[in-house]
Amino acid sequence: MITENIIGYQSSSLSRRYIDATDPATMTTLPEAFAVATAEETDMVAEKAFKAWRLYRNISGAQRAAFLNEIANGIEALSSELVTRIMQETAYPEARVIVERTRTCAQLRMFAHEAERGKWNEQTIDAAIPDRSPSPRPELRKRMIAVGPVVVFGSSNFPLAYSTAGGDVASALAVGCPVIVKAHDSHLGTNALVAEVILGAARKTGMPDGVFSSLNGDSMHTGKQLVQHPLIAAVGFTGSLKGGRALFDLGQQRPIPIPVFAEMGSVNPIFIFPGKIKENVQALATQLVSSMTMTAGQFCTKPGILIALQDPHTEQLISELKAALEKVPEASLLNEGIFKSFISGVSEMKAENEVMVMRDFYSSGNLRTSPVLATVPADSFLSNPRLHHEVFGPFSIIVLCRDIAQIIAVATTLEGQLTASIQATNEEMDTLRSLVEILIEKAGRIVFNGVPTGVEVCEAMTHGGPYPASTDYRFTAVGHHAVYRWLRPVTFQNFPPAGLSV
Amino acid sequence: MITENIIGYQSSSLSRRYIDATDPATMTTLPEAFAVATAEETDMVAEKAFKAWRLYRNISGAQRAAFLNEIANGIEALSSELVTRIMQETAYPEARVIVERTRTCAQLRMFAHEAERGKWNEQTIDAAIPDRSPSPRPELRKRMIAVGPVVVFGSSNFPLAYSTAGGDVASALAVGCPVIVKAHDSHLGTNALVAEVILGAARKTGMPDGVFSSLNGDSMHTGKQLVQHPLIAAVGFTGSLKGGRALFDLGQQRPIPIPVFAEMGSVNPIFIFPGKIKENVQALATQLVSSMTMTAGQFCTKPGILIALQDPHTEQLISELKAALEKVPEASLLNEGIFKSFISGVSEMKAENEVMVMRDFYSSGNLRTSPVLATVPADSFLSNPRLHHEVFGPFSIIVLCRDIAQIIAVATTLEGQLTASIQATNEEMDTLRSLVEILIEKAGRIVFNGVPTGVEVCEAMTHGGPYPASTDYRFTAVGHHAVYRWLRPVTFQNFPPAGLSV
Repeated sequence: MITENIIGYQSSSLSRRYIDATDPATMTTLPEAFAVATAEETDMVAEKAFKAWRLYRNISGAQRAAFLNEIANGIEALSSELVTRIMQETAYPEARVIVERTRTCAQLRMFAHEAERGKWNEQTIDAAIPDRSPSPRPELRKRMIAVGPVVVFGSSNFPLAYSTAGGDVASALAVGCPVIVKAHDSHLGTNALVAEVILGAARKTGMPDGVFSSLNGDSMHTGKQLVQHPLIAAVGFTGSLKGGRALFDLGQQRPIPIPVFAEMGSVNPIFIFPGKIKENVQALATQLVSSMTMTAGQFCTKPGILIALQDPHTEQLISELKAALEKVPEASLLNEGIFKSFISGVSEMKAENEVMVMRDFYSSGNLRTSPVLATVPADSFLSNPRLHHEVFGPFSIIVLCRDIAQIIAVATTLEGQLTASIQATNEEMDTLRSLVEILIEKAGRIVFNGVPTGVEVCEAMTHGGPYPASTDYRFTAVGHHAVYRWLRPVTFQNFPPAGLSV
Repeated sequence: MITENIIGYQSSSLSRRYIDATDPATMTTLPEAFAVATAEETDMVAEKAFKAWRLYRNISGAQRAAFLNEIANGIEALSSELVTRIMQETAYPEARVIVERTRTCAQLRMFAHEAERGKWNEQTIDAAIPDRSPSPRPELRKRMIAVGPVVVFGSSNFPLAYSTAGGDVASALAVGCPVIVKAHDSHLGTNALVAEVILGAARKTGMPDGVFSSLNGDSMHTGKQLVQHPLIAAVGFTGSLKGGRALFDLGQQRPIPIPVFAEMGSVNPIFIFPGKIKENVQALATQLVSSMTMTAGQFCTKPGILIALQDPHTEQLISELKAALEKVPEASLLNEGIFKSFISGVSEMKAENEVMVMRDFYSSGNLRTSPVLATVPADSFLSNPRLHHEVFGPFSIIVLCRDIAQIIAVATTLEGQLTASIQATNEEMDTLRSLVEILIEKAGRIVFNGVPTGVEVCEAMTHGGPYPASTDYRFTAVGHHAVYRWLRPVTFQNFPPAGLSV
């Protein structure tokens, strides 16, 4: 395990200061200490990445594909060493880690395929019209160019799939952008293991020095230096609204502003209609509870708000939800910061007017918690914006509405969302056009008779939504189209073939 | 002519304050005074545009096409009334105005065709895989949605093609975004005439109230209110770096940030190599002088910097340029602000170390000026960033380089550009790969053996470039792909056909 900062093919620990990783299940310090990056090391990675960009953006898609495939192979080869470390750093059960590893490697191979296929790089061509009057048209060819070095801030909840070799990194590497990862404080060892795999793959496939780097550091300090560095071209971030907005502001306030793609989560409302409850209340409750509590509710697509009519069907659903939640065991949250935010978030929600607790908080110690469920009448919800915010972790609230008009009113007052879902029969859906219209304004993905968790990695995915779900809803953080975040068009006018081949 | 503010189908002049338009050729006040918008009127247009968005985004592409085509027809029908007013407000010769009118109407019809063709709206579909293990894949469909009301700040130099019914407006209307135009102070009458055409076309084709509005106002005050209004979704701007950055900052600092597409011009360097000069020095000089001085150099793609070797070929080119410039008549600039900036810009350039004037400033009065040409040794240019900035108007400077290495050094120090051009023989071009690589980093469009002015309206165009040329180099302000500035993807998961048709 490389415990130093990784500056291209070089390791470095100029600060001689070290930070530890913690096992959240036991709150004990894990083996190995990790060197904190200095400002000088930040300069070094940015300069190496910039130099690497000039080479890396021009190598073939097949070569970049070989690099990404080799990373996937390397992650699989690490086998139990990696799985164990992730379990230690996240308190995730083994099955959850294995699923994430599968997803991560599939994602790397998908972006490898994209790198080779180069669909994103297809040229748009307007042929010359030499005899056009009054003036001839020159030939114009537009193609996509890698924007430059990309800084990635990994997520707390996806130590593999949205971190060191995750979606942001793989999509940037696929199209020719070198990457600098700011290691997440919650999984420094996982980062070190995966970074070593990436370096090995880069060496084996002959990638330029600086195509990948990774710094450990005091989160905002090192992160700020990276985002403000003049040689950095773009930033990917997955995490909290507070952290994402801070990085976004830093990026926009630079002398030369750069795009900061921050995916900041949301409450992912599910609108539930009586016909659907009647169909099979138990199946619905099981599906909802699974989505609310998987990975201890620590998904950016966790449904934090359910909206339903105040009627006997909903009462029945609530009692089924309560019953299902009773069976969900306590689970450890990812780190002390998340645990404390969860506790204070739940306490604040419980203290709000007319909020009723259906399933209360329980903890047998350390960072463990039960899931929490509450209800609130729509009148209170509509007049209280504090109830609209996300509580990260296993907390959801049911908003009880007088009628369909009040359901629409609730939808209209919601903030921007990654997702919004409708649970309804086909007959009910036929009457819900105005709700769908509101949800189009609010969310990046709209789900019918399903739950928002389980984000497909595919071409038609949109993972991103109106602010505060993300800082740029024109792009997706998941799926094939994620590569467009790291590309810009350049037009070549009247170019000879030799000039175009660069 | 509607001299009031246009709030959808309503006219309004709550302030009872009026501003005039000026003829820059004579510095006299033109007929008609225009009502200045109030904060209340800004609210009114934003609310109307937002309501219109909910209707307008869902009408068919064919209906939007009919609307845009009708605007083009209406502009043509205005005939001499419009042409005369534009000539009065810009001091452009008639031929220049006619060319711009042709371009504007062609552009409207092109976007009408795009609206109907709906290529930008093609759905990306991932079919369901019901029997996938461990979990089935739902069907996912991604399509593009109009972002919402768009505010457009027209340009001073394109009173038609990049103003009230120009590229930003037409591209936004094509894909379902209502538009609010902030009328440019330099052509209030042109704006009023064109706005009336747009309203007539909207009425005739049954468009919703609020699909188009236009406010007059003290530029930064009304503009600021519009950009900060919570119901505004995006901004298009064509103008100065100072104005564009101010609007960009306002857009990013909002509680909910919005995209601000500011196209802020650049110096559009042309790199000239000796073989090309030898081929036909007179033809080259004629081409360059035409590009430098057309419309009195008031193009965002005017070549402001020429880079060449200090050798006898370049000396010959300079003497041909001088000769050609002597024949260019004085021309009036667009307004007093632009004239004053030009005079002070030229004075500052002339005062810089080692700058030699080849063709000096001359004015017979009012806002008239001759073109101005200077030279500077590359050593001075490289060490003096003040020489890298744009002087809007007919000013260009030739940077004289010791050798090819110094030409590359000059390219490397340039700021972001809309365009960069290379004048070279094919044999020379074969040796210039490293220059092309640098220019890819610097510019949105790279021209071989041509001049940057004359921006084709086509699919392969990129009009936009690294900052400070524009605030978002991932998008183009000219050509078919300009519509993508006003669109965002939304994914529909497992949707029944009824839900999708909204």
